[in-house]
Amino acid sequence: MTGKVSLIGAGPGDAELMTVRAQRMLREADVVVYDRLVSDEIMALCPEGATLIPVGKCPKNHPVPQDRINEILWEQATAGHVVARLKGGDPMIFGRGSEEAAYLIERGITVEYAPGITAAQGASCSTGVPLTHRGLATGVQYVTGHRQADKTLDLDWKRLADPDTTLVVYMGVSNIGQIAVGLMTEGLSPATPVMAISRATSAQEERMVSTLGTVAQDTRDAGLKPPTLFIIGKVVSLSAQQPQDLPIEAVRANG
Amino acid sequence: MTGKVSLIGAGPGDAELMTVRAQRMLREADVVVYDRLVSDEIMALCPEGATLIPVGKCPKNHPVPQDRINEILWEQATAGHVVARLKGGDPMIFGRGSEEAAYLIERGITVEYAPGITAAQGASCSTGVPLTHRGLATGVQYVTGHRQADKTLDLDWKRLADPDTTLVVYMGVSNIGQIAVGLMTEGLSPATPVMAISRATSAQEERMVSTLGTVAQDTRDAGLKPPTLFIIGKVVSLSAQQPQDLPIEAVRANG
Repeated sequence: MTGKVSLIGAGPGDAELMTVRAQRMLREADVVVYDRLVSDEIMALCPEGATLIPVGKCPKNHPVPQDRINEILWEQATAGHVVARLKGGDPMIFGRGSEEAAYLIERGITVEYAPGITAAQGASCSTGVPLTHRGLATGVQYVTGHRQADKTLDLDWKRLADPDTTLVVYMGVSNIGQIAVGLMTEGLSPATPVMAISRATSAQEERMVSTLGTVAQDTRDAGLKPPTLFIIGKVVSLSAQQPQDLPIEAVRANG
Repeated sequence: MTGKVSLIGAGPGDAELMTVRAQRMLREADVVVYDRLVSDEIMALCPEGATLIPVGKCPKNHPVPQDRINEILWEQATAGHVVARLKGGDPMIFGRGSEEAAYLIERGITVEYAPGITAAQGASCSTGVPLTHRGLATGVQYVTGHRQADKTLDLDWKRLADPDTTLVVYMGVSNIGQIAVGLMTEGLSPATPVMAISRATSAQEERMVSTLGTVAQDTRDAGLKPPTLFIIGKVVSLSAQQPQDLPIEAVRANG
């Protein structure tokens, strides 16, 4: 009997931010194929006796190629297993979840989905900085600031440089200097507030409030490492209203 | 003793798509201030004996003005209650959650957050249409297609008309004709696929696959009502890969 694959969003880090459906599907799995960014706390929810298969990727270091991940999922499902494919954030926003789904559906495997809180929402919840706010941001946009090793960062700066939209950059640590210059060249003020959040909602969360003009230097000085998210736009000015009163420097959230 | 306010994302409709944190905070509340779009199934999670205060808004019909909602939250918290402010989707994406938070924080009330799966993610999970996909969409953008009665729809069509980004329009039913024309005028092809999803993930879910050139007429013909979400972009072409093989017409998801 053929099994199935549940494409599960592990959310931003804190296990309590998983959906009820995501936790249920994980508990029902007998094979868990998981990414590097899934926290230990979430892995602890895997059923006792389940086979755990790590396929995690680090930037510039792909232990398991995407084609092989697809095959593993197919092999496990055709062997009759209930497979949980556990990915950080939401499987349908970045992270190539839909490529895996397309591969499996083409081969007759049933795919089910559990959405996840994406890192931008986790960061918003953790800092109190909204993604939209009347008078500050009429919409929000998610882009990635990372390309494969041989590709250049081909973002459309003119389109992204909108002072009335919140811009969230995923995986942007190594290119934040280029991103900031691109946005300022197309008219965003160097004073535009930026918040960088590393491992939002996890015990290792770090955050920094800066401006577009200084964010590249500040990111280097703070030693922020991937996975770090940048929230760019006027909404970041609301961080000052929060009780923790974030300083313009890196702080350990739990320090 | 002063209480507190938990700003809780109820998610797209299905109670199982709430986060574990959202359900926990709701269960801890003794006062629940809730919007019209929160489903009965989710309201059934409120603790027995909790005071339920509806403050729902319909388009062009605001039973409780925003200023009064702010006051209610403040009154209930200062009376010592643990107040759940329950909103559809994610409180930090549209829906004015951060305005309520700012009002309360200014007055010394503790605000806690539980993020929610936003309607776009719910629709994606329910239809299998991803929000980003390598080669089809490098990012995703959320905007609202609705303005207050006296305001014109001031969207920046040139910026939004990007064939390489998924555009999600919230609250767009009454203006979808104007939106489609704006996007086509700035260069998006009339053949660009569009999916409309009404009450995604709820038992009343309806969906329709169309194109930018015909979506206004198709929306009218299908009789889609708010809340309806439009997903515009090449990712919608992946809906054909799904087992349900969505036709180019309105279908009841559960019919």
